[in-house]
Amino acid sequence: DRDMAEDNTVAGVVTGLAWTPVGGDILFIESTIYPGSGKLTVTGNLGEVMKESAIIALAWIKANAHTFSIDSRIFSKFDIHIHVPEGATPKDGPSAGVTMLTALTSLLTQRKVKKNIAMTGEITLRGKVLPVGGIKEKILAAKRSGITDIILCKDNQKDIAEIEPEYIEGIRFHYVSRMGEVLDIALTDELVDEPVDFQAMMESMEVSKALSLST
Amino acid sequence: DRDMAEDNTVAGVVTGLAWTPVGGDILFIESTIYPGSGKLTVTGNLGEVMKESAIIALAWIKANAHTFSIDSRIFSKFDIHIHVPEGATPKDGPSAGVTMLTALTSLLTQRKVKKNIAMTGEITLRGKVLPVGGIKEKILAAKRSGITDIILCKDNQKDIAEIEPEYIEGIRFHYVSRMGEVLDIALTDELVDEPVDFQAMMESMEVSKALSLST
Amino acid sequence: DRDMAEDNTVAGVVTGLAWTPVGGDILFIESTIYPGSGKLTVTGNLGEVMKESAIIALAWIKANAHTFSIDSRIFSKFDIHIHVPEGATPKDGPSAGVTMLTALTSLLTQRKVKKNIAMTGEITLRGKVLPVGGIKEKILAAKRSGITDIILCKDNQKDIAEIEPEYIEGIRFHYVSRMGEVLDIALTDELVDEPVDFQAMMESMEVSKALSLST
Amino acid sequence: DRDMAEDNTVAGVVTGLAWTPVGGDILFIESTIYPGSGKLTVTGNLGEVMKESAIIALAWIKANAHTFSIDSRIFSKFDIHIHVPEGATPKDGPSAGVTMLTALTSLLTQRKVKKNIAMTGEITLRGKVLPVGGIKEKILAAKRSGITDIILCKDNQKDIAEIEPEYIEGIRFHYVSRMGEVLDIALTDELVDEPVDFQAMMESMEVSKALSLST
Amino acid sequence: DRDMAEDNTVAGVVTGLAWTPVGGDILFIESTIYPGSGKLTVTGNLGEVMKESAIIALAWIKANAHTFSIDSRIFSKFDIHIHVPEGATPKDGPSAGVTMLTALTSLLTQRKVKKNIAMTGEITLRGKVLPVGGIKEKILAAKRSGITDIILCKDNQKDIAEIEPEYIEGIRFHYVSRMGEVLDIALTDELVDEPVDFQAMMESMEVSKALSLST
Amino acid sequence: DRDMAEDNTVAGVVTGLAWTPVGGDILFIESTIYPGSGKLTVTGNLGEVMKESAIIALAWIKANAHTFSIDSRIFSKFDIHIHVPEGATPKDGPSAGVTMLTALTSLLTQRKVKKNIAMTGEITLRGKVLPVGGIKEKILAAKRSGITDIILCKDNQKDIAEIEPEYIEGIRFHYVSRMGEVLDIALTDELVDEPVDFQAMMESMEVSKALSLST
Ligand SMILES: [Ca+2]
Ligand SMILES: [Ca+2]
Ligand SMILES: [Ca+2]
Ligand SMILES: [Ca+2]
Ligand SMILES: [Ca+2]
Ligand SMILES: [Ca+2]
Ligand SMILES: [Ca+2]
Ligand SMILES: [Ca+2]
Ligand SMILES: [Ca+2]
Ligand SMILES: [Ca+2]
Ligand SMILES: [Ca+2]
Ligand SMILES: [Ca+2]
Repeated sequence: DRDMAEDNTVAGVVTGLAWTPVGGDILFIESTIYPGSGKLTVTGNLGEVMKESAIIALAWIKANAHTFSIDSRIFSKFDIHIHVPEGATPKDGPSAGVTMLTALTSLLTQRKVKKNIAMTGEITLRGKVLPVGGIKEKILAAKRSGITDIILCKDNQKDIAEIEPEYIEGIRFHYVSRMGEVLDIALTDELVDEPVDFQAMMESMEVSKALSLST
Repeated sequence: DRDMAEDNTVAGVVTGLAWTPVGGDILFIESTIYPGSGKLTVTGNLGEVMKESAIIALAWIKANAHTFSIDSRIFSKFDIHIHVPEGATPKDGPSAGVTMLTALTSLLTQRKVKKNIAMTGEITLRGKVLPVGGIKEKILAAKRSGITDIILCKDNQKDIAEIEPEYIEGIRFHYVSRMGEVLDIALTDELVDEPVDFQAMMESMEVSKALSLST
Repeated sequence: DRDMAEDNTVAGVVTGLAWTPVGGDILFIESTIYPGSGKLTVTGNLGEVMKESAIIALAWIKANAHTFSIDSRIFSKFDIHIHVPEGATPKDGPSAGVTMLTALTSLLTQRKVKKNIAMTGEITLRGKVLPVGGIKEKILAAKRSGITDIILCKDNQKDIAEIEPEYIEGIRFHYVSRMGEVLDIALTDELVDEPVDFQAMMESMEVSKALSLST
Repeated sequence: DRDMAEDNTVAGVVTGLAWTPVGGDILFIESTIYPGSGKLTVTGNLGEVMKESAIIALAWIKANAHTFSIDSRIFSKFDIHIHVPEGATPKDGPSAGVTMLTALTSLLTQRKVKKNIAMTGEITLRGKVLPVGGIKEKILAAKRSGITDIILCKDNQKDIAEIEPEYIEGIRFHYVSRMGEVLDIALTDELVDEPVDFQAMMESMEVSKALSLST
Repeated sequence: DRDMAEDNTVAGVVTGLAWTPVGGDILFIESTIYPGSGKLTVTGNLGEVMKESAIIALAWIKANAHTFSIDSRIFSKFDIHIHVPEGATPKDGPSAGVTMLTALTSLLTQRKVKKNIAMTGEITLRGKVLPVGGIKEKILAAKRSGITDIILCKDNQKDIAEIEPEYIEGIRFHYVSRMGEVLDIALTDELVDEPVDFQAMMESMEVSKALSLST
Repeated sequence: DRDMAEDNTVAGVVTGLAWTPVGGDILFIESTIYPGSGKLTVTGNLGEVMKESAIIALAWIKANAHTFSIDSRIFSKFDIHIHVPEGATPKDGPSAGVTMLTALTSLLTQRKVKKNIAMTGEITLRGKVLPVGGIKEKILAAKRSGITDIILCKDNQKDIAEIEPEYIEGIRFHYVSRMGEVLDIALTDELVDEPVDFQAMMESMEVSKALSLST
């Protein structure tokens, strides 16, 4: 029951790495956005710590919206939903932080995610990336799934050094310590096909509200 | 205590497939809509994962409303209720995802559901259909109940290959990998009898609000 | 400690049937309505499934309000309260569904409930009545309490066939499969004495709000 | 640690009767009201069923406000708080229903409660009083505390018949079956000293809101 | 780890008495107020009964605001926070009621609390003070901490009578039965230094809201 | 897996000290702020007492906003998020109070935190700093991490006196009893680079709201 890397041509979907008692696996962080009132919904049978990762990722983006040319009004005029598929499997822990951050930034900028890239790492509110566990199993799973680029915390470099070289042949490792570096590596400058036009949507939302008021 | 397929002449009701410790069964996903403020209610003695399926289905429809010519204002001016009958039986798991998706899309477009069709499969926020378990028991139950068409995830095709051919005689299988394919197969282009006219209802809601304000 | 059938001259009160470990019993579903903001309150030491029955009944009435000439604005300008007496006894299960449906429809239309009628059956969101258990005990209790008419799901007819005829002598059974049939049988066309005039109340609520705004 | 009957010269305070593992006791239901937004708060270390009694009492009064000449706007412009003293003792059960009903009606009409009266009985949403347990212990406690008048459900009359006459000498019993009878017996027609003037308060609340808006 | 009495020159801070398995202790009830929307926050690792004391104290003050010349609009335009220090220690029970009442009244009137005074007693919604336990241990702790005046419920006078006179030498006891008496004794007529000017703050809040609206 | 002191050039991030079963550690309190509606979010796998510390710190700052020249409107027009990294580790207790206070004050004033400073101590609502446990382990961890200045409660001075002098060589201890002293020591008068301009942000938020209204 093995997942394979996919073309991430849609905004808001990024590949992460998970450790499970029976070995590593890749997982997908999916996110979407639609008109609403600023609510964040998180699904996928997640524990409290993993839900907190989503909250932290969104808070960091809100506080740094100008850096990514994101119009802050989006945060109060749309709802955001993050989902981690395979609902039958409970999931927890902070290691999907970088993946959630990348998914949300892609969603809000409509920028394409790099092909065949995966990542694992805890995030913090001031923008640091922290090391996580289960690296060997995660890397082997990534390789099996066709991943060619992996983003890790610098402090996880020592875990890679302990893996037999033939197991990681052909994988490029990107070691980072800041969340900004993750986004520089993982997000391309290209927009996805048929990107959401937030400005146009907000204007049309204003118009239909005004029409209601003047009925 | 066996349920039989029914004419789905009403919008928002779709047949799913369930696995239980004593064999497969069909189940119905029922949905309805009425003036409100954008609330989603889910009943039927459901566990958290099954409730999440309903939330995911609605989020995906909200983010893809234009594809189905659904007026986005409906989501904030009506309440939606999803129910899975037989309240005495606790139910859980992600496999009703495709059924909930189809029910909600039928409800919001007022399109008729194909006759004698049933389905089972997990859904994700980016529009994928994932495989689920208990296929053999579910298929046998569907046959007993008069189902002629079944939608499954492509990754469940191997489970069908393992069933003795005489048990599945006369059933057409539709293997899909995307949620859009599910809707193409399951929803007809025909509206139900006496379809809800959302535009007329929203206009009449505006008028009665305006009358209140000018009292 | 036996309850007896009562003249249901007040709107919103209907007799149901309950199964308990020490035999059947009749129970009353009571409902009331007063100016508010669309909230539904459910009391009586009820479990989750029984609370869901109340939510389903109200949702179905909201979605079918026009059928019963109920002004939809009532649902947002009044609060509704459903209570099941004898708070010391925990109660659960879906079988009070038809009773709650009938109580709420009587409440919202101010139509009288038929005398000496009782009922038991699960309801669904699309308007079906489903069979329930404990029929023999419930029927015996109804008889002891002076009930003359009982509404049951068609699928419960077989349970009646198994009861010795002398135990059910003098009781008329009404077998139904749709919620609309329940209401046709249980509600008379006569209004209760001193019916609530929702239109007058809503107008007076508007006036007093307007007076406040113009102070 | 015995409580004694008190002059109920303040609105909203009524004496109830409680059964405890070590014998009966009297208890006080206290209620108060202040400008707010229609919230009901219930304190006193109460279980769910006892909290439901307070909700039922208030709902019944709201639905019958005109009977007691209570201005319905009070329910949305004030908050109501019900407290049952002696927070260290957990309390539960439906038997304080009549006491809560009487306390709230006194509070909202500012009518004095009869002196030296106590009561016990469950209430229902349609206005019935139901019998409760522990009658003998409750009556003995009432007598010790100086109570001279006790309101009970008619169905509890048989419990009184079983008590030795000398134990109840000098106590008048009032047997009721309707909540309106409770109020007729327990509430005098006299207002408390310095009654709250709800109309004046609401007008002054409007004025200060208008002043704010025109600043 | 012994706390000592402190000069209560700040409004809203009052000394209470606590019983613990290892003897009595003094504790402080601290309260503060700031612009908000009428929310009450209670912290300090408190159990449900102790939180209820805070709610009761505030409700009683709201219902008696005129007695203390408190402008009722304060309750909806400010938030109030009550804290009981030493977060590592769980605390519960009703005996801090009088202390919370005094703290909140001092906070809302900005009146100074009497020096070297401490108190213990349950409060009720109609203004009574009820006796509490652990009196001997509490008194000894108060003496060790430099307390000179103690407020107790009249019904606790018998507990004082049982303490050896030399242990309570130099302490003045104030026995009360009403909450108004507590405030008469514990609050001076003097305002604290730099008292909060609620009227000025509310006016400035109105002005800045008006400026926003007219932008 | 040892954390090292970091240049706190960003507002809202402060170093605290933690005790764990395997020795002391430093930890970081991170905070951030963004347009919102006055919500406080706290993440990091924290127990109830540690969450209360954040609430107390923010309440104290709100009540003393003028002292720090903080515009009170910020509290209702922005959301604040506090995070304590390393989500896999559950954390609890009141000892991060001073650290949270310093982080929030830095965030709201945009003042730089002193380099290489760490702190531990409980806070109270009236501005006191209380002693905490685990001092020896915390100090040793601070030294290993390159901390040169440590703020402690005066009542913790005796714990320092018990540590062998060579273990604390080169560390300056700052003993405090008031929260104002903590901020005097820990916050410099210098603003961080590219400080958030709250006034400009609030004006721009008003403008975009006005534009919406006049559409
Ligand atoms: Ca997988
Ligand atoms: Ca990951
Ligand atoms: Ca079935
Ligand atoms: Ca299914
Ligand atoms: Ca009964
Ligand atoms: Ca029933
Ligand atoms: Ca007592
Ligand atoms: Ca009672
Ligand atoms: Ca202490
Ligand atoms: Ca105390
Ligand atoms: Ca660490
Ligand atoms: Ca700390």
